[in-house]
Formats: sequence, C-alpha cells, structure tokens
Amino acid sequence: MGSDCIFCKIRSGAIPSEILHDNDACFVIRDIQPKAPVHLLVIPNEHVTFVSTLGLQHDAIMGSLFRTAHEAARREGISGTGYRLVVNQGPDAGQAVDHLHLHVLGGRRLGEMG
Amino acid sequence: MGSDCIFCKIRSGAIPSEILHDNDACFVIRDIQPKAPVHLLVIPNEHVTFVSTLGLQHDAIMGSLFRTAHEAARREGISGTGYRLVVNQGPDAGQAVDHLHLHVLGGRRLGEMG
Repeated sequence: MGSDCIFCKIRSGAIPSEILHDNDACFVIRDIQPKAPVHLLVIPNEHVTFVSTLGLQHDAIMGSLFRTAHEAARREGISGTGYRLVVNQGPDAGQAVDHLHLHVLGGRRLGEMG
Repeated sequence: MGSDCIFCKIRSGAIPSEILHDNDACFVIRDIQPKAPVHLLVIPNEHVTFVSTLGLQHDAIMGSLFRTAHEAARREGISGTGYRLVVNQGPDAGQAVDHLHLHVLGGRRLGEMG
C-alpha cells in the first residue's frame, strides 16, 4: 500500500467511496470528473505504480483488469455499443494518480484518442 | 489466425509492413493514420478479437502487451515524457480491426481521452 495513495485509501476504506464491485485483483469506482456518460476506473488492489514496473508477476492482475473492465461495461449497459480502455502514463498523458488504473469510457460515440 | 484479418496478414508477412519489434506474444507496428507524433500498435500474435473473449489463458498475452508497449515507448524516447495506452472496443470507440490491439500514443501533451 502506498501510504499517501488516494486509491489505496479508497480500497482500505480510509476514504469513503462507492466501490461498484471488486474481486481478488481489482476494484471498480466511478471517475469523479467523468469525461463521458460512463466513466469508470478499474484499479488493482496492489499498489502498482507505473507500466514501467510491470513484470511477469503482474500478468494475472493485468488480465483481471481487462476482464473486470468488460464486466463493468456490461453492468453499465455499454458492452454492446462499445467502450474505450485507457491507461495514462506520465506527464504528457496527464496521469493524475501514481497507482496504475484503467479508465473505461463509453455511453456515447467517442472522439479522438488524445 | 483470422483468414481475413489485416493484422494476421501483417504478422505472417502476407501484407508487407515494418514490424518494429516482436516477441513470443506480440509485435509492434506504426499506426498508418497517426494521431500523435508517436503512434504505435502493439498486437498479439494470436488472433484475439475482443476484450469480451479474454479468459485466464490470455493473462500472459495481456501482461506482455503492456511490457512491450513500455519497451516500444522507451525506444521511441517517450517513456519519460509519458504516453497513453488505448484499447478501442466496438462501434462507439471506433474499433477499426477486430483483432485486439493496444495503441501507444505520445510525443506531445495529449488531450482528452475521447
């Protein structure tokens, strides 16, 4: 756990937040500044920071992030219309929290990727 | 292999394309319609179609996609400035090829995610 990490604090309950669902690998919350009608975050339970730190030991987490993202999209009713999954890394991408997370965006026709 | 899949044809060499690098799980090419100064595609060798089809047996592929994306970003000189990883699924996201792939965008300050 990152002691100053907002996602770790949400996961532990230290910061109250609606966790839509969770499993052994990750949990799902709504983005507090949504950029689309549906905008979720799928976040590893483990305090993984950057893509650069990913090793073989994280494969199961990365697989689960994608399966959980699809399940979250299905629950929101956008698995058929489509959705975009985004990971922002570093300043040029506007990474806001140094705890790896997968954005799930949908509910309208999406524009350019950046 | 998807017999009509452009990515499978690039992988097999049936369609000539510059493969920047590859490994046991995936290969990297440049997007032919780049949306940023650096715009790469990291593509599984296996003809995986949609996020909805991903199971536990794909965890190693998904892990490799991310590690390979970071390596590709490093080779392009954007691992420090940052980059965005994107998977488009279905019509609202503008998925153009029904073979799962990870976009790597960078080389400038990126805008909104969609």
